Amino acid sequence: MSRERGPRSGAQRKADVLAALKTPALDGWVATASPDGDPYLVPLSIVWAGDQVIIAVDGGSRTARNLLASAHARVGIGPTRDVVMIDLELTRTADVGSDPTLADVYAAQADWDPRGSEGYVYLVLRPTRIQAWREADETIGRTLMRDGSWSV
Amino acid sequence: MSRERGPRSGAQRKADVLAALKTPALDGWVATASPDGDPYLVPLSIVWAGDQVIIAVDGGSRTARNLLASAHARVGIGPTRDVVMIDLELTRTADVGSDPTLADVYAAQADWDPRGSEGYVYLVLRPTRIQAWREADETIGRTLMRDGSWSV
Repeated sequence: MSRERGPRSGAQRKADVLAALKTPALDGWVATASPDGDPYLVPLSIVWAGDQVIIAVDGGSRTARNLLASAHARVGIGPTRDVVMIDLELTRTADVGSDPTLADVYAAQADWDPRGSEGYVYLVLRPTRIQAWREADETIGRTLMRDGSWSV
Repeated sequence: MSRERGPRSGAQRKADVLAALKTPALDGWVATASPDGDPYLVPLSIVWAGDQVIIAVDGGSRTARNLLASAHARVGIGPTRDVVMIDLELTRTADVGSDPTLADVYAAQADWDPRGSEGYVYLVLRPTRIQAWREADETIGRTLMRDGSWSV
């Protein structure tokens, strides 16, 4: 990523976001909530493919149950002073073993393959909002995608 | 932090957690949720004092509103493969300017001082559960505090 002085342009931030999302073995902090408003958070492997985020979790995990109930997640990537923040909506789920193409895509970026983990599911999530900022001087202009459409 | 091979002992993890929590200019990923189950997540400065976590946010921010409504937060600290995860309950709030001792404690660890930021509030949070793990071999034994009491 670029390290010029001063705030990055929107175009530069979008390029940095896409580069970050393609990082091999990328992890993110995945926040979800129960229907009655109990927050949950866990670090998970993040895969970016076809403009969607794929995560793989145990189907009985709190993250899976929260997403199946509410469909919403918010994911933070990067060190806390070079943040990519993504609001996501669940679009589909697939049991491991049921979708070889999805499984191959997942394994190609992640550094593990859940096909050996019984009960795991892939959750495919569509970004609705993407923000990127480093320090306070990047607060303005940090929203790069709104309602699922890039604004830059 | 220690970097021996194999899983750390509970005592070592607790020592590592306490050392991590005292890091100057520490940031954490603060997850909260609205009463109707919409997840929120944002990186914030984390201050550890008197066995409690202090954050400072705009009183109108989503983090403040969620915490005032539900009292629960979950905070992730560290790189995603050396995690400290803390479930927290709100114990009290204080407007900036109303509690000089709290403000001094906050400013001593954080790398900024919200006393100049109108509308900001300190939120003081009591840990109820603390977990620490690095890789999969540390899944067992990762819970170091339950119901507000250290188990190690």
